[in-house]
Amino acid sequence: MSNEHSTGRKPQDTDSLDARDSGYFTEESSIEAVTQRNKNAKDDRVRFAMDVITRKLHEAVLEIEPTPDEWLSAIQFLTQTGHLCDDWRQEFILLSDVLGVTMLVDAVNHRRPSGASENSVLGPFHVKGSPTMEMGANICQDGKGEPMLVHGRILDTRGQPIHGARIDVWQANEDGFYDVQQKGIQPEFNLRGNFNTAADGRFWFRGVKPKFYPIPDDGTVGSLLNVLGRHPYRPAHLHFIIEAEGFSTITTHIFDPHDPYINSDAVFGVKKTLLAEFKRIADPVRIKDEGFGEPFWDVEYDFVMAVI
Amino acid sequence: MSNEHSTGRKPQDTDSLDARDSGYFTEESSIEAVTQRNKNAKDDRVRFAMDVITRKLHEAVLEIEPTPDEWLSAIQFLTQTGHLCDDWRQEFILLSDVLGVTMLVDAVNHRRPSGASENSVLGPFHVKGSPTMEMGANICQDGKGEPMLVHGRILDTRGQPIHGARIDVWQANEDGFYDVQQKGIQPEFNLRGNFNTAADGRFWFRGVKPKFYPIPDDGTVGSLLNVLGRHPYRPAHLHFIIEAEGFSTITTHIFDPHDPYINSDAVFGVKKTLLAEFKRIADPVRIKDEGFGEPFWDVEYDFVMAVI
Repeated sequence: MSNEHSTGRKPQDTDSLDARDSGYFTEESSIEAVTQRNKNAKDDRVRFAMDVITRKLHEAVLEIEPTPDEWLSAIQFLTQTGHLCDDWRQEFILLSDVLGVTMLVDAVNHRRPSGASENSVLGPFHVKGSPTMEMGANICQDGKGEPMLVHGRILDTRGQPIHGARIDVWQANEDGFYDVQQKGIQPEFNLRGNFNTAADGRFWFRGVKPKFYPIPDDGTVGSLLNVLGRHPYRPAHLHFIIEAEGFSTITTHIFDPHDPYINSDAVFGVKKTLLAEFKRIADPVRIKDEGFGEPFWDVEYDFVMAVI
Repeated sequence: MSNEHSTGRKPQDTDSLDARDSGYFTEESSIEAVTQRNKNAKDDRVRFAMDVITRKLHEAVLEIEPTPDEWLSAIQFLTQTGHLCDDWRQEFILLSDVLGVTMLVDAVNHRRPSGASENSVLGPFHVKGSPTMEMGANICQDGKGEPMLVHGRILDTRGQPIHGARIDVWQANEDGFYDVQQKGIQPEFNLRGNFNTAADGRFWFRGVKPKFYPIPDDGTVGSLLNVLGRHPYRPAHLHFIIEAEGFSTITTHIFDPHDPYINSDAVFGVKKTLLAEFKRIADPVRIKDEGFGEPFWDVEYDFVMAVI
């Protein structure tokens, strides 16, 4: 090598270039550097969403200041979460659930007038094509569990009954399992049914008292809940999808307010308007009137539908 | 069913419960509902990070207001990104890269005094154990490409040379491929080398002029870049890791400022202080002096190390 290179150019000699205009990266201009790059997006909605996501991600990095090892842990967490997903399990939805994101996305999409019934999460256990039944039918096919009578009305926001509302109900059994989780143990379509309201808007059917159950906690989401000092349980509930022509479909639960996990649903599905009351009825006259042979749980709840 | 249930309790009759205290979910209190739940975390750092991540995620949802289908698209994007990851490919790191997150995490971890060389991304192609060479050696083993002389000094922030600095350099070939991407085509450790500085802090070695190349763009990140109207290219660069006892290790690149992608690096690795100059030397005397048989590229760059 010759000696011509004895005075090396220092890296900071390139000050004439402006980092903002050039898109070169600095900690201070990082959000702008990235969002400016997205300005030719083919889809305005994607551009807008990615701009917000970029800004929030960078704000999070600036606030947390993750070490390189912590960043790598986050990468590995996401990778393992992806690897757990298959046709049967969706760990990213579970992650969205336990971070309250699923409920928030639902909330911003279903802002309803005061008094209208609120939504909760759909959950992974809804099954299309469950049987349509006559009012009063028992959706429990195997006789397991404490008997329950569920009844109420489907109303509009003026308190008028809705004729021809379709009620799709499903629930876990007394052990906290849905039929699809116990194929070969529970009958097909156990604890599921569809009902159609008459002009009085009333519905009534029989089931069994539901029980709390854990979300799948043997994956990354379970590990996260564990380190966050959180349990994986959902309080006892009944699922409903209620549809009627001209009204916003309600996808929701009703909850037992006396459940031990009612204040700490792992997926934040509980809203105070969704608390029903589960009354234990031991009065022999009522037991006889309702056609039960033993004490039963009486659950009364009216759903209020908002016009579209 | 008896007629005792004629006046159903309306859901909104449970006003005595306070949503904030109970942890029940509302759109307005969603961040608090989730972060309150994390207050018993076993690890303060994880709790803090998850509180920030939760807040930023909820803020993003409130600003974007994704439809249920858009939310599901995001879930599917993350799932597919996870499925693309294996021992050889890390699509989540690539996602972090193209969103500028990797560079920002590096930036917040390596704030250095003014004048000290800045970091860039490590990238996936660093290989440990590449050969240690004498100054002046040619790291190009297969003779492919336009010859290049790289030289400069390793200095401290007072401008004093650093003795015993270890320089680990690697680069792509004239087609934009690293040796590890072309096993059986390029020799092992092609375009890689380690050098140790003497008391004068100087380094010099030979290589070939690098070329721009694309990041892997056949996965979810490539699809994202496409819809964002972005190309997948990284401008031509040389990689360096420079270590010296008592100084903060520099992991960085130097870039060719005349590269067509210098203002639009897909992973935001370019900083203005990392622009070198690639001078084409056609002067027969210089060519002879440096021992080349044809015109060559002269790249001079000084690295400035900050004390730990």
